[in-house]
Amino acid sequence: MGSTYGKIFKIATFGESHGAGIGVVIEGCPAGVTFDQDFIQSELTRRKPGQSRITTQRKEADEFEVLSGVFEGKTTGTPIAILIRNQDQRSKDYSHIATQYRPSHADYTYQEKYGIRDYRGGGRSSARETAARVAAGALAKTLLQEAGVNIQAYVSQVGTLKLEKSYSELDLSLTETNDVRCPDPVVAQQMFNYIDGIRKQGDSVGGVVNCVITGAPVGWGEPVFDKLHAELGKAMLSINAVKGFEYGSGFEGVTLLGSQHNDAFYTDENGKVNTRTNHSGGIQGGISNGQDIYFRIAFKPVATIMQDQESVDQEGNIAIVQGKGRHDPCVVPRAVPIVEAMAAIVLADFYLRNKLSKL
Amino acid sequence: MGSTYGKIFKIATFGESHGAGIGVVIEGCPAGVTFDQDFIQSELTRRKPGQSRITTQRKEADEFEVLSGVFEGKTTGTPIAILIRNQDQRSKDYSHIATQYRPSHADYTYQEKYGIRDYRGGGRSSARETAARVAAGALAKTLLQEAGVNIQAYVSQVGTLKLEKSYSELDLSLTETNDVRCPDPVVAQQMFNYIDGIRKQGDSVGGVVNCVITGAPVGWGEPVFDKLHAELGKAMLSINAVKGFEYGSGFEGVTLLGSQHNDAFYTDENGKVNTRTNHSGGIQGGISNGQDIYFRIAFKPVATIMQDQESVDQEGNIAIVQGKGRHDPCVVPRAVPIVEAMAAIVLADFYLRNKLSKL
Amino acid sequence: MGSTYGKIFKIATFGESHGAGIGVVIEGCPAGVTFDQDFIQSELTRRKPGQSRITTQRKEADEFEVLSGVFEGKTTGTPIAILIRNQDQRSKDYSHIATQYRPSHADYTYQEKYGIRDYRGGGRSSARETAARVAAGALAKTLLQEAGVNIQAYVSQVGTLKLEKSYSELDLSLTETNDVRCPDPVVAQQMFNYIDGIRKQGDSVGGVVNCVITGAPVGWGEPVFDKLHAELGKAMLSINAVKGFEYGSGFEGVTLLGSQHNDAFYTDENGKVNTRTNHSGGIQGGISNGQDIYFRIAFKPVATIMQDQESVDQEGNIAIVQGKGRHDPCVVPRAVPIVEAMAAIVLADFYLRNKLSKL
Amino acid sequence: MGSTYGKIFKIATFGESHGAGIGVVIEGCPAGVTFDQDFIQSELTRRKPGQSRITTQRKEADEFEVLSGVFEGKTTGTPIAILIRNQDQRSKDYSHIATQYRPSHADYTYQEKYGIRDYRGGGRSSARETAARVAAGALAKTLLQEAGVNIQAYVSQVGTLKLEKSYSELDLSLTETNDVRCPDPVVAQQMFNYIDGIRKQGDSVGGVVNCVITGAPVGWGEPVFDKLHAELGKAMLSINAVKGFEYGSGFEGVTLLGSQHNDAFYTDENGKVNTRTNHSGGIQGGISNGQDIYFRIAFKPVATIMQDQESVDQEGNIAIVQGKGRHDPCVVPRAVPIVEAMAAIVLADFYLRNKLSKL
Repeated sequence: MGSTYGKIFKIATFGESHGAGIGVVIEGCPAGVTFDQDFIQSELTRRKPGQSRITTQRKEADEFEVLSGVFEGKTTGTPIAILIRNQDQRSKDYSHIATQYRPSHADYTYQEKYGIRDYRGGGRSSARETAARVAAGALAKTLLQEAGVNIQAYVSQVGTLKLEKSYSELDLSLTETNDVRCPDPVVAQQMFNYIDGIRKQGDSVGGVVNCVITGAPVGWGEPVFDKLHAELGKAMLSINAVKGFEYGSGFEGVTLLGSQHNDAFYTDENGKVNTRTNHSGGIQGGISNGQDIYFRIAFKPVATIMQDQESVDQEGNIAIVQGKGRHDPCVVPRAVPIVEAMAAIVLADFYLRNKLSKL
Repeated sequence: MGSTYGKIFKIATFGESHGAGIGVVIEGCPAGVTFDQDFIQSELTRRKPGQSRITTQRKEADEFEVLSGVFEGKTTGTPIAILIRNQDQRSKDYSHIATQYRPSHADYTYQEKYGIRDYRGGGRSSARETAARVAAGALAKTLLQEAGVNIQAYVSQVGTLKLEKSYSELDLSLTETNDVRCPDPVVAQQMFNYIDGIRKQGDSVGGVVNCVITGAPVGWGEPVFDKLHAELGKAMLSINAVKGFEYGSGFEGVTLLGSQHNDAFYTDENGKVNTRTNHSGGIQGGISNGQDIYFRIAFKPVATIMQDQESVDQEGNIAIVQGKGRHDPCVVPRAVPIVEAMAAIVLADFYLRNKLSKL
Repeated sequence: MGSTYGKIFKIATFGESHGAGIGVVIEGCPAGVTFDQDFIQSELTRRKPGQSRITTQRKEADEFEVLSGVFEGKTTGTPIAILIRNQDQRSKDYSHIATQYRPSHADYTYQEKYGIRDYRGGGRSSARETAARVAAGALAKTLLQEAGVNIQAYVSQVGTLKLEKSYSELDLSLTETNDVRCPDPVVAQQMFNYIDGIRKQGDSVGGVVNCVITGAPVGWGEPVFDKLHAELGKAMLSINAVKGFEYGSGFEGVTLLGSQHNDAFYTDENGKVNTRTNHSGGIQGGISNGQDIYFRIAFKPVATIMQDQESVDQEGNIAIVQGKGRHDPCVVPRAVPIVEAMAAIVLADFYLRNKLSKL
Repeated sequence: MGSTYGKIFKIATFGESHGAGIGVVIEGCPAGVTFDQDFIQSELTRRKPGQSRITTQRKEADEFEVLSGVFEGKTTGTPIAILIRNQDQRSKDYSHIATQYRPSHADYTYQEKYGIRDYRGGGRSSARETAARVAAGALAKTLLQEAGVNIQAYVSQVGTLKLEKSYSELDLSLTETNDVRCPDPVVAQQMFNYIDGIRKQGDSVGGVVNCVITGAPVGWGEPVFDKLHAELGKAMLSINAVKGFEYGSGFEGVTLLGSQHNDAFYTDENGKVNTRTNHSGGIQGGISNGQDIYFRIAFKPVATIMQDQESVDQEGNIAIVQGKGRHDPCVVPRAVPIVEAMAAIVLADFYLRNKLSKL
């Protein structure tokens, strides 16, 4: 249980890091949506390993096959199954962890929970699973385009290096122009050098991804439990290595007074209701209010490092886990398309759910 | 949609702030659990309005009636319906917002989404709904006691006043000894005075609640989307006024290196596998690892303030919304039992789900 | 688990026969639907006990209270909770079954499944629960009226007495003119006398209810598992005492050849696609095709009879269960509104789901 | 929506008749269940086309590939994806129905519902989808073996040819000894000849499949909506061409009196509670009572026949649909493993759900 996401636009992912492949079944996508194979591939390429010196060197083409649900370039309303085969597994790199637990990985918890685990490459707990999310997210993005919704994520912090500007001060179209995916080229270069240094030490470091959604209409999100930001939070926290989520004014907002924090309404020249500030992050009462939606996500340093670490084995004996396998020294550059994909999946779901709010 | 939470231990709340009452139907609670009416009442009393000078002055006894699912003091395995009637509504305080939108409230988004709204006291968007969660959470807590699980939340920040100690340095049994629910009596008194000052200004301020869960066994949480921290995050973000969630090392952890952040395993004298540090916050791969689970939640300043504010009405005309109604100057003292309740509901669900992990 | 029905228009019932009351929470009803209290009451009155000599003599007004989700006569899009209090419990009539199992009742299976049961009046397994369904069904009927959909059920068989006419040969407006709810007044009188005779013997007998749905558009129902007839079948089989369900040509259709059974399409003078015959029962590939939908439901004789019966007690000892309590000698007259309610709930759900089939 | 079945043991099928393939993702299967590839293949072989003269001549090996969720011969608790590629599509046989509607098929309803359809071989509405169910059902059967549960279906009627014996009078081990899957060899031969005659006429005929489940313990099934027989009914009605479902005494039971129909309890020499008769069909109050569970399913004559038929095209013009494509003259022989598979899926789900009934 736990491999399904969404209530209407519903995705179910499957697959392990070193099994036959990974994939996703998307149910609930309406009929008639353009299925843009090139766009899906381009999104997968943004996430794929081996894209630069500061990402894992595993080589995966991450080409996908559509197994169902698409006919003559359009979705048909039936389940869309997408398969991405694994190619560059090096399972022997992982034989040492068949019985050892890597610190801060999921080896120990999976073993205890299930009594069995596919230890090769981390099995189901590997971030390789997120490729399936990106494929589904690409379709969600296509669906959202019709509603004029745009999603853009970018790296705003790596270790202690922070981008000290808000999204409105940045040119987000520059995000894809560098390997770090930071829209400020100068800071991006600093971040690149920093990560590359960490890589050479055989260590890893954390970071922060910001995400901005523009063009969402009023009304997306559902009262009480399925608030828009609650689902966005769950979706982001479900991404490997995420430790925190905040939207709008976030943790900083707690120091403000209500009279400072409240977003006054006004009507603009086009008769559209807007707010003068946006501490709400585009969401009020869990429902989008037509302003920009923005949030931040904290990623911990990747647990795989090229250093020996103290641990135990399945019998509880002391074990020294060796630093092996390929890994990302910092996960945030590749996390950008994953964050966007999950945001798209959440929004597509609420877009469809909102069609049922009134007759 | 959106008023249901959980997959096995499933709660469905209903009710508006000024309607007949609020309530909850709990489905999926196993048969044979003790239904402790006194404990449920005591939890409701911790949350109820009017409990001190720094909370809203609405007077609600918040007494509940059990409508079903309990027989001779035990749950029977059938749905448990609990009803809490509203008593101290002052709907006329809200007549001015029948057509006006209060800034940073849900008035505007509900109106646009549904084309109709019960404006009295905020209707469904009122935090009064959380009383139903607290009732259900009290039952979840009882269920968890059997598994030796304990949940304790407390206030760690009010505005700029921070409690600069980790939970392990505090005596959490002192939390309930003051009106702020801060376990450090000195800081609690400062916070009280600070909130009381804000109250006199007719303003509000935000805060942070921390929560610690001890005694959870290894194995709670599900891979991929329903990670334990992802569900905890969603549950917390679904509470009114929450803007952020972080667990374990959280946002601060992004500055660490992997070699600093990883939690080394060792086996203690009783043969139990432990970690030497706990940056993981008790969760690895989305599954509890037997260590303490801890997280932090940011609450914004309450949107209701006793000041005139600029806004618009339903026709888009400029409107000055008057400061009326009763409200909390700072929501975190009353949020403590709500946070615990939602944590209990999430954990009870995973406790039951984990019974199905292996045969 | 198991007390929730529907995916979009979702009902969750609660309550026991002799507890405080029974009720239902309806989630997913769009905002703006007329909430017609009189109509809901009239539907409850059609189902309520004590309505004639041939139904149980338990006296319940079955008046309901709306607890939430309705504002100024309209649904608001939030959960609608309805409560019907129990009034005429005679729990002492049931003290003898606290430890004995009534044959063909749910006493034994509940006890084994849960280890505890509210034996009074059958507890949760009592058909009293269906009042909650009728209340929810009345709202679903209101919702369907907008789409021009009409649902009519009637009694077509009692014991061996069969109404040998198809629905198209009957005037269904006569159904409510007699206590049996058979639209043929002559056969209705025979059935009444028959049931009354059974009643005097302290025995019970089975029957069949037919249901016809007119005005449903093309497109309701979902492929593969959630076929329209599959959900109708589940909904009907979930009603107490139901043993069988068939739609369209049903069990009789198996003897036909494909060339006889296939329903040829033609276009009528209004350009509407129709079928010349309707063996399909208005459903093809699990989706409504715009023709009349019709089905039949078999009800067994009620298990409660006024005779001593051989059984066992909770320790497995032989026990003679005495015939006590009040009961219906034949359940089908009161089943008619329940069948309609469940059909309405299923159709309302598919009506809403179909809004998502294409953009 | 509609391609997912089950609450705990949950299957999601995908695929079209003439697309890349069909498949299933199984979520919720506990870890540690033996994954018996040979058994799964043997079940698929029982269902596959081309197995005898009286089934469709489409040639499909129906070999499957496991994409995930299995490690070293055991399930790991993560989603199990199974893919069966299509091989013998003859899509050109279907070009004539790109714009025409075959009578009593799903062409018209899919087109109207979705505005687009994959017409090749019926697309998603083809019974080819049931191969995915059989694969999942084989795993469910393995899971049930541990609980000692056995499921056996057989053909009891073809057209007007009825097997006039109850299951207890038959040797069900003979079912697989003939192409019709009727356990009485003499009747089986009559049925074979009858079907073969129909086939030569280019026509089709209906039939009935019976199913018997032995060894199920007390307690499977959930109160109110998810009654065991209600889910069995939905599962069976979701199979292509099914028109009716009855269990236990079924439609015949309506003529009995309660005093005849009630199943008296007694305790056998081993202390097990049994019933002297089994009109209940092994289910009381929606929950298994430890007796044999049995039910019957009506299948209509297959809609594909080798004859010209009157119909309309997408513009509503008169069209003569030609008899083309390959088909089964009578679906029941191949339906036997499908019925068993769906029964196994339903039971596996309730087996797991029942683990949560009490602590």
